[in-house]
Amino acid sequence: MQTLSIRGGRVLRPDMSVAEADVLVDREAGEILAVGPTLGGDETLDASDGLVIPGLVNAHTHVAMTLLRGHADDKPLDRWLREDIWPVEAALEPEDIEAGAELGVLEMIRSGTTGFADMYFEIDRTADVVERAGLRAVLGHGAISAGKDDEAARADIEESVEMARRFDGAAGGRISTAVMPHSLTTVTPELLELAATEAADAGVPVHYHANETVDEVEPIVEERGARPLEWARDLGLCGSEDFFAHGVHLDDAEIELLAETGTGVVHCPASNMKLASGMAPIQRLLDAGVAVGLGTDGAASNNDLDLFDEMRDAAMLGKLAADDASAVAAPDAVRMATAGGAAVLGLDAGRIEAGAAADFAVVDLDAPHLTPRHDPVSHLAYAARGSDVRHTVCDGDVLMRDREVLTLDEAAVMERATDRARALLERAGA
Amino acid sequence: MQTLSIRGGRVLRPDMSVAEADVLVDREAGEILAVGPTLGGDETLDASDGLVIPGLVNAHTHVAMTLLRGHADDKPLDRWLREDIWPVEAALEPEDIEAGAELGVLEMIRSGTTGFADMYFEIDRTADVVERAGLRAVLGHGAISAGKDDEAARADIEESVEMARRFDGAAGGRISTAVMPHSLTTVTPELLELAATEAADAGVPVHYHANETVDEVEPIVEERGARPLEWARDLGLCGSEDFFAHGVHLDDAEIELLAETGTGVVHCPASNMKLASGMAPIQRLLDAGVAVGLGTDGAASNNDLDLFDEMRDAAMLGKLAADDASAVAAPDAVRMATAGGAAVLGLDAGRIEAGAAADFAVVDLDAPHLTPRHDPVSHLAYAARGSDVRHTVCDGDVLMRDREVLTLDEAAVMERATDRARALLERAGA
Repeated sequence: MQTLSIRGGRVLRPDMSVAEADVLVDREAGEILAVGPTLGGDETLDASDGLVIPGLVNAHTHVAMTLLRGHADDKPLDRWLREDIWPVEAALEPEDIEAGAELGVLEMIRSGTTGFADMYFEIDRTADVVERAGLRAVLGHGAISAGKDDEAARADIEESVEMARRFDGAAGGRISTAVMPHSLTTVTPELLELAATEAADAGVPVHYHANETVDEVEPIVEERGARPLEWARDLGLCGSEDFFAHGVHLDDAEIELLAETGTGVVHCPASNMKLASGMAPIQRLLDAGVAVGLGTDGAASNNDLDLFDEMRDAAMLGKLAADDASAVAAPDAVRMATAGGAAVLGLDAGRIEAGAAADFAVVDLDAPHLTPRHDPVSHLAYAARGSDVRHTVCDGDVLMRDREVLTLDEAAVMERATDRARALLERAGA
Repeated sequence: MQTLSIRGGRVLRPDMSVAEADVLVDREAGEILAVGPTLGGDETLDASDGLVIPGLVNAHTHVAMTLLRGHADDKPLDRWLREDIWPVEAALEPEDIEAGAELGVLEMIRSGTTGFADMYFEIDRTADVVERAGLRAVLGHGAISAGKDDEAARADIEESVEMARRFDGAAGGRISTAVMPHSLTTVTPELLELAATEAADAGVPVHYHANETVDEVEPIVEERGARPLEWARDLGLCGSEDFFAHGVHLDDAEIELLAETGTGVVHCPASNMKLASGMAPIQRLLDAGVAVGLGTDGAASNNDLDLFDEMRDAAMLGKLAADDASAVAAPDAVRMATAGGAAVLGLDAGRIEAGAAADFAVVDLDAPHLTPRHDPVSHLAYAARGSDVRHTVCDGDVLMRDREVLTLDEAAVMERATDRARALLERAGA
């Protein structure tokens, strides 16, 4: 057995307490063997002045959209999609997806993220990047009916199903998949139902966007006579493995439904603010026992993939939404970014304890903005940022050591992404 | 003449365009001499792959509260002040103020801030830190009537006046001052009026908190029959040099009054979210032509002093407040953090052009989260963070070079702040 020990630091426990401890990892099994005092190993990582935290989970993104970071800001969702995003996405080539995914994955590893869920296109390219980069992902082809004839729309859902079947379990099990119909309003009811049936048949979850804007909720209420998630449940989209992004506009019955069915919600606070979508009722979801994770959404509506921002935003915005400064406390935010996201994505990770997947990050606490250290959990939620991450480990492999990413060539990734982004916008005439 | 040239980078112009240019500085005068191609100097700073931006202005903080960072989170404003903040502040010793101010100033220099306004106690200690550290500050003694008898309350205001007179123009002109009555509800009307009269007599502005929470607005409306800022104007607190923090709850007449009188508003979005105070109507203030700057507020309600967070929060929250994703665009956020804050504080800074104060920062754009570079202004608002700052210059002096702060001993500052914070909480029984 090859072992790795993380020494001299403190560890964030599943109950959100912090203790001085080393962590011992079985590298081959990719599993945490022990958490305790003075644990030696074949290889060591220095965690002195550091805090070992579960690897962060970015439970909803469109990773290749890093190519569009800062391309078009400060526009409402519908105009932004129609004028700036969809025309460029129509010009995407597989190499763009690969270049954008490499950039996004690089950024995530640098900021302590070890798992993410991605809805996009050409997912074979993203899968290849994930395999090389060493983190975990739930991948899916985003299928959309809007703008397509019946046949093309059906073929799109079928591609989502086929891709989910093909890549489930890839990269030695680090990749799982979902069938991903884009949203309750952009995919036809028949195809939403087909997605649910086929996903169940393939043994994978369904992932989609729901209840993001008021404009998305109202037409469903009018046409179907039901709230969007009641309707989604009737279509088969609210199983205990299924998860959707946003859930900004939810009523009490929908919250209850999510708790009862075990459907996961991915809260994307930065995207919801930047697109003026609204404030999700996170404290109410947590009180009801709904599984909630955090997501950055795509870099074009964020504009980065740093989960530390999402923890801070979730805690901050959750208070405003509840009109209560005690809502969505720091431990809640950290839990959503770790164990919460892992539960939503079905990963056996998100906690530092024996038997869990060896997915973690070491946060360097030796910095002015993290001094003094009254409460490290508060620092994680409110003061730390991605650049404070010193090491990132996933599945027992060191992906970043002393702020140097080992699995990707950082300069080459940035250069390629820059070139592909420039050519993409030229091609799209944007 | 001793000159400094900042070479090989791009420069953010006052109109928010970005151009390749060098910057030449007269170090003795502390002034920008020229912005243009290939400018040599006696000393150079490398700005390759970087963006030269005006030094950020933190227009409202309580800098020594860094000692309480993470001490008590997730509580409503009134309980938080009564239970956690005021009892500890009552135990503060001058050495605590100095240690906390050093820590906060260190953090600000590291994240590209070159000027700040501070309302706190023992301002001689803060003035000493500012003098040594090399940035600019508007300092004032925060005077409060609540909990004091008439005599003590009057003495407190008189101290604020005396301190403002004593330190105005200190540190070779880098320090200016204001008379700082705490807020419209925590200082008696007579003493608010006295503060205004004495400030005018001393030729300094008045700075205070106003319209932060609904609980602060309603009693004034009931007792005075006027909106808080109408009442403040009648007391003499809305002159063209005066500025106040928050302005979360403002009606149209108050916004008009602020524009007409030239009173400056300091928007503190992180603090307003964390304390669930509400969403300030920033787009409406900008549309009305009100002078708006950004502030972190104290580190206990933020929890850091990184103005990059405030730019992002201001742009994000401003959209939610306006229910419009095109509100408070990236250039607006950057302008508030630079020229806007400088105007509010009366500093001849906040812009990179010949004749302006040589106060600026160089942001390193060579990072995954800032790739590709479609729009550097978008990156400043949405994706950059304090750790991306490579150099910080104020008044022509290099305060940080290649991420090493030259004017403070970083390790000693952190150690002292840690020790003082621990002893302070023990003394306060917190």
